[in-house]
Amino acid sequence: MPLGDRAGDKSESRYCGVETEFDDDMPQLLVTNLSSGGFDYVVAPLMDPSYRPSLLQKENGGSGVLPFAGSDLVLSPAQWSSHVVGKISSWIDLDSEDEILRSDSETTLKQEIAWASHLSLQACLLPVPKGTSYANYARCVHQILQGLNNIQLWLRIPLVKVDDDSTDVKSDHLADSWDLWNSFRLLCEHHSQLSIALDILSTLPSPNSLGRWFGEPVRAAIINTDSFLTNSRGYPCLSKRHQKLITGFFNHSIQVVLSGKTLHNVSRGCTNSPTGLNKNPSDGVQPHPLRCYLDYIGFLYQRMDPLPEQERVELGYRDFLQAPLQPLMDNLESQTYETFEKDAVKYIQYQRAIVKALKDRVADEKATSVTTVLMVVGAGRGPLVRAALQAAEETGRKLKVYAVEKNPNAVVTLHSLVKMEGWEKIVTIISCDMRHWDAPEKADILVSELLGSFGDNELSPECLDGAQRFLKQDGISIPSSYTSFLQPITASKLYNDVKSHKDVVHFETAYVVKLHNVARLSAPQPVFSFAHPNAASEGSNRRYKKLVFEIPNDTGAALVHGFGGYFDAILYDDVHLGIEPSTATPNMFSWFAIFFPLRSPICVPPGSPLEVHFWRCCSPNKVWYEWCVSSPSQSPLHNGNGRSYWVGL
Amino acid sequence: MPLGDRAGDKSESRYCGVETEFDDDMPQLLVTNLSSGGFDYVVAPLMDPSYRPSLLQKENGGSGVLPFAGSDLVLSPAQWSSHVVGKISSWIDLDSEDEILRSDSETTLKQEIAWASHLSLQACLLPVPKGTSYANYARCVHQILQGLNNIQLWLRIPLVKVDDDSTDVKSDHLADSWDLWNSFRLLCEHHSQLSIALDILSTLPSPNSLGRWFGEPVRAAIINTDSFLTNSRGYPCLSKRHQKLITGFFNHSIQVVLSGKTLHNVSRGCTNSPTGLNKNPSDGVQPHPLRCYLDYIGFLYQRMDPLPEQERVELGYRDFLQAPLQPLMDNLESQTYETFEKDAVKYIQYQRAIVKALKDRVADEKATSVTTVLMVVGAGRGPLVRAALQAAEETGRKLKVYAVEKNPNAVVTLHSLVKMEGWEKIVTIISCDMRHWDAPEKADILVSELLGSFGDNELSPECLDGAQRFLKQDGISIPSSYTSFLQPITASKLYNDVKSHKDVVHFETAYVVKLHNVARLSAPQPVFSFAHPNAASEGSNRRYKKLVFEIPNDTGAALVHGFGGYFDAILYDDVHLGIEPSTATPNMFSWFAIFFPLRSPICVPPGSPLEVHFWRCCSPNKVWYEWCVSSPSQSPLHNGNGRSYWVGL
Repeated sequence: MPLGDRAGDKSESRYCGVETEFDDDMPQLLVTNLSSGGFDYVVAPLMDPSYRPSLLQKENGGSGVLPFAGSDLVLSPAQWSSHVVGKISSWIDLDSEDEILRSDSETTLKQEIAWASHLSLQACLLPVPKGTSYANYARCVHQILQGLNNIQLWLRIPLVKVDDDSTDVKSDHLADSWDLWNSFRLLCEHHSQLSIALDILSTLPSPNSLGRWFGEPVRAAIINTDSFLTNSRGYPCLSKRHQKLITGFFNHSIQVVLSGKTLHNVSRGCTNSPTGLNKNPSDGVQPHPLRCYLDYIGFLYQRMDPLPEQERVELGYRDFLQAPLQPLMDNLESQTYETFEKDAVKYIQYQRAIVKALKDRVADEKATSVTTVLMVVGAGRGPLVRAALQAAEETGRKLKVYAVEKNPNAVVTLHSLVKMEGWEKIVTIISCDMRHWDAPEKADILVSELLGSFGDNELSPECLDGAQRFLKQDGISIPSSYTSFLQPITASKLYNDVKSHKDVVHFETAYVVKLHNVARLSAPQPVFSFAHPNAASEGSNRRYKKLVFEIPNDTGAALVHGFGGYFDAILYDDVHLGIEPSTATPNMFSWFAIFFPLRSPICVPPGSPLEVHFWRCCSPNKVWYEWCVSSPSQSPLHNGNGRSYWVGL
Repeated sequence: MPLGDRAGDKSESRYCGVETEFDDDMPQLLVTNLSSGGFDYVVAPLMDPSYRPSLLQKENGGSGVLPFAGSDLVLSPAQWSSHVVGKISSWIDLDSEDEILRSDSETTLKQEIAWASHLSLQACLLPVPKGTSYANYARCVHQILQGLNNIQLWLRIPLVKVDDDSTDVKSDHLADSWDLWNSFRLLCEHHSQLSIALDILSTLPSPNSLGRWFGEPVRAAIINTDSFLTNSRGYPCLSKRHQKLITGFFNHSIQVVLSGKTLHNVSRGCTNSPTGLNKNPSDGVQPHPLRCYLDYIGFLYQRMDPLPEQERVELGYRDFLQAPLQPLMDNLESQTYETFEKDAVKYIQYQRAIVKALKDRVADEKATSVTTVLMVVGAGRGPLVRAALQAAEETGRKLKVYAVEKNPNAVVTLHSLVKMEGWEKIVTIISCDMRHWDAPEKADILVSELLGSFGDNELSPECLDGAQRFLKQDGISIPSSYTSFLQPITASKLYNDVKSHKDVVHFETAYVVKLHNVARLSAPQPVFSFAHPNAASEGSNRRYKKLVFEIPNDTGAALVHGFGGYFDAILYDDVHLGIEPSTATPNMFSWFAIFFPLRSPICVPPGSPLEVHFWRCCSPNKVWYEWCVSSPSQSPLHNGNGRSYWVGL
C-alpha cells in the first residue's frame, strides 16, 4: 500500500518497492513482501542466477525451457505489471575480457528483457556497469531499446562523487558516477526509455553535485539498510542530509526501493515504532524483516507539508512544453483572459504602483482640482482599468481613463463592464491598436501589461515605443523598466520532448514551461533591459549580450540541455513584479518560465566557464532571438534570421 | 438533458439541440430552451441579423462595439461551450455579384467566428452555400481554418439528390448536395475541423445515396418540423425511412437538431404523448413549442436495442488506426495471447474442423488402433493444442501432438500448461521456428492460426510452405485455404488521420482498424487465394489481381479514400472462419478489418467503374503489397518495392 496520503500528491513517489532474492514462487514472493510486508512492488530477479547459456547448450542441446521464475500464468497480467520490476541478473558483465562470459551476458540480458516485455512489466533494473569500460554494455542496451515495447530500463548507478581535493582518489575507483551515466546515455542517444535507479550509500556527495540528478530521468532511489543510522532507541533512521535528499526525491516523483538485510533487531517491536506509524499490522505473522525501514520511509513521506494549492493547479503543467502566446498577432480567448484576471497578486502590485505614481504626479492639495489622464494600453477585459480606478479612490485623485484594446471581442466585455459599473463618465473605450491610435490628448500615466515570461518576448518594447507618442514628455510608464534573465539547466525530459519532433525547427524555438525536473546549474544572470519612456533612437530594441556562467566547482561535470529564462519588472518606484527565482513575486501564477533548448547538449567539465551569446533581432515584421554557446565547446548558431521561431509585429 | 440512457452508448448522439432565432438575452434563451424546454443545447445566432459592416461604418465611423448577443460574461465559460452552437448569419453570401454584400459577408463571417473562438464554443453552423458557385465562400473558410482554435465548423448542407431519371431536374436546382460538399471540402483540403450539418427534408434520396454520408464527417442532422408526418392521433411522427435514417445517425454519433415552427397543435397535451415519454414536465409553464418533436426523437433513441457487449468493448477502437502485428518478426506479448485466447468462437470452429478431419482420417473401427500425428505450428500458449485434444476426446481418436512454437517466452507457458493438465504423454513441445524444425516424423494433420485481417498478410503462406515438408503426402492442413477480399470505401476520418503524419510512408501502409464511420461503396470482391498443402512450385506466393468495382447507379458520385480488406478461410470441409462482411463468423473478435489508403482520394462519377490493381510481392527477406487505381483516374503506384510497408520473413 502507498506510503501515505499527501494532500494533492498523486505522484509515483507514493509507492515503495523492495529488492528481493531470486524466488521460483512468485505468488508467495508477492504475499510475503506486499500483502504481509506492506511494500507496493518487488524488484525481483526473473531468471535463476545459476543459469548460463553456454552451460545449458552443452548439457541438453538447447531445446529446453529457460529457467524463468514461474510462467506468465502464475500472476495475472495486472499483478505482473503493477507489482513486479524485473531485476536483470547481476552476474552479467558485457565488457568482460572473458569471451564466454561476455557472450553469455549478452544472450541472458536479451532473454530476460524479452521475458519482461512478454509479461508487460513496467520496468527492469539493469545492473551497475562493472568496470570503467562499458561500451559493449551500452551497445547491447542501445540495440534492445530500438525494438522495445513500453518498458523502462532503469540503469543502476551508485550515488558517488569523490571530492577533487580528497586524498583517497584512486585511479581504479569511480570518481563521479554521474560521468558514467552521462557517457552511457550519450551512447544510447538520450533514449527516453533509459532511466536511472540511484544506489544511495551511507556517505553523500556535495549538495551541488546531488542537484544535477534532478535534471536527469531518475525513477528510483535504492536505499540499502547499511545506509541507515540507529537512533537512541535502537530504531533505524537517516542522517539529516539523507532525509533532505529523500524529500527531494519524493518531490520529483522518484520512488524509494529498500534493499539489504535487516541490521536493526527491532522487528518484533515494530508496532511500537517511534514514528507512531505502522502499516498493516498482521497479528501472529512474522513481520517483514525490513518493516522498520519501510515505516521510517513512510514517516518521512507523511511528514511533508501538503502540496500548496497553486502547486496542485500547476501539477499538470510540470515540464510540459507550450508554445508562447502571440497576443499581438492572435487575439486571446475569453477563457484565457478569465484565467489571467484571477491573478490577484499581480493586480495588487499594479494598484500599488499606480497609487505611488498618482501621488507623485498630483500633490495632496491639488487632488480635487487636477485630473490625471491615465491610458491603459492593451486593456483586455478591463482588470487594469479596475486597478486604476481603485488606486484613484484610494488616493482621492481625479482620473480620466482611456482603455485602448485591439481585440474587438474583448472590447465587447469592456463595454458591458463600464456600463455595469457605471464608469461611463470616467472611462473611454478605444477599439484600436495602440500603435495606430490617433489620441485626442496626451497621457500622464501609461499602464500596460504586455510582458511575457522572458520580459520583452511578447513585444512590449515595440508596443510601448508605439504608444509613447501620446505620453506627455514627463509622463510615467507603468512598468517603467524590465529585464530578462537566463540560467543554464539540465533538463533531459524537456530535451527528449523537443527531440521527439525530429526536426531543427523545434530545437530553435522557445517554450513556456513550468520547470520542475531540472537542475539549475548556475545563478540566473540579467540579459536584456528596456526602460520606458524610451529616449533612445529608432532600432534601439536590438540587443546582444554575452554571458559567462560559472558552475560551482563541487558540482562536477554537468550537461546543459538549454536555458531557463525569466523576467523582473519595475512597475514604478520600488514596486516590482517578476519570476526570476531569487526575487520572484510570491503567489503569482500568470507566468511560467521560458526554455531555450540546445540542438546538442553541451557537456561542461568541472571548473570550466560556460560562455553563451544571446541576440534580440528586429525586422519590420517580426522580432526573434538567436543564441549559441561558444565555450567549453562551440554550438551551431540557433534560429538564424528567425527561421524557426519569431514573434510577429 | 440527454435523450435517454442507452446501455453502453456514451456517444454525442444522446444530445439534442434546437435552432433558435436571434435573441439578445442569452441566459433567458437557455432557460427557455434547455431548463424548461428539455433540449441540451441551442444553435443560436451570435450577431444581430440586421448588422451590416458597410452600414455601420457609414453611421458612426467604426469605433463602436459589434452587435453580438450579449457579452462573454452573460454566461459562464462552461455554459458557452456546452450549450451554445453559434449560428453564423444566414444572410451572408460570399459569392454574390453585389460587391458590397460580398465584402460585408466576408467581414461578418470572420467577426462571428472570431467571437465564437473568443467564447471557446465547440462548433459554429455555417449557412448553406447560396448558389451553384461557392469558391469564394470556400476560400474564406479555408483562410479561417488555418488559424482556428479547436472549434468545429459545421457546413449546412440540404440532404438532396434528384434521381437521374427523374423528370423534374432543373439546371438551376441542386442535383446532388453531396457534390456540393465534396467540392467544398476538396477546396478546403479535407480540413479536419470542417464538418457537416445535414438538413433533413421531407423526401429522402435513395438508400445507396444516403449511405455515402456515413463515411463523411457529419456531426448534426437538422430536422425541420415540416419533415414530420402526423399520426392518427394528431401527434408528429416520421416516415419509416426517416426513422431508419435517424437510427443510423444515432449509431454514428450524429446529433439531432430540431428546427422550425410547431405544426402540430398538441402542445397542451404533451403530457399524454403517445410515446409515453415526457421529459421534465413543468407544471404551469407553457411547454416548449417543439416539445412533442423532441419527445418523439427521444422515443426513437430509447427504442434502440442496447449496444451489444462486443460493440461496447470495441467502442474505443472504432476508426482507430493500428499497425498490423508482425508475429513472425516480433514476439507477441503475454497480454496479447491472453486477449486472443478469449475468442471462444474461433476455437470452437477449429475444434469442429479437427473433429471432421480426424473422422475422415481414421474410420470408426480403427479409432483405438491408429494414432493420428497432429502438429500445431505456431502453438503460442496452447489454445489449439487444447482444441485438438478436445476433438480427440469427442471423436474417440488417439492423438499424438507436437506443439511447435518459436517464441521462447510462450514456450514457458506451454510447458507449465502441459504439466498442469497432465498431457506429458501426448504432447511434445518444440521450441523452434517451424521453417527450420527437423521433425522426427511426418504429420497427418497440420493445424495453424497464422491468418491476419487480410488472410495472407501475416505470412501464413510462407510459414505453411515451410512446414509442409513434415506433412504426409495425403496429410490435411487446417486451414485448407483462405482468400482475401477488398471493397472501396469513403472514410474521411481515416484519411485525415493518415494525412496528419504529413509523409508518404503512412499513405503506403496498411492499418488494422475497426471500420465504423465509413461508407462501403460496393460489395467486397475476392483478391488472393492460397491452398494448403501447396502443390505448386517455388515463388508461387506472388499474386496479381485486377478488380473492377461497380458502384450502384443510384449512389451518385462518391469519393474513395481507400479500401477495406477482409478474409475468409476454409478450415476443413464446410467449416469456415472469416470477417468478410456478408459471410462473417458471428461473435468472433480476433480480427478487425484492414485498411489500404490512397494518397489522393479518387472521385468516382455516377456509373463509372472503379479499376484497381493489387500485387502481393515477395523477396527473400520480406513480403509486401503494392496497389494503384487506374480508372476513373490514375493514382500513383503505392508502396513500390515495399519502400514504406512490408512484413518481415
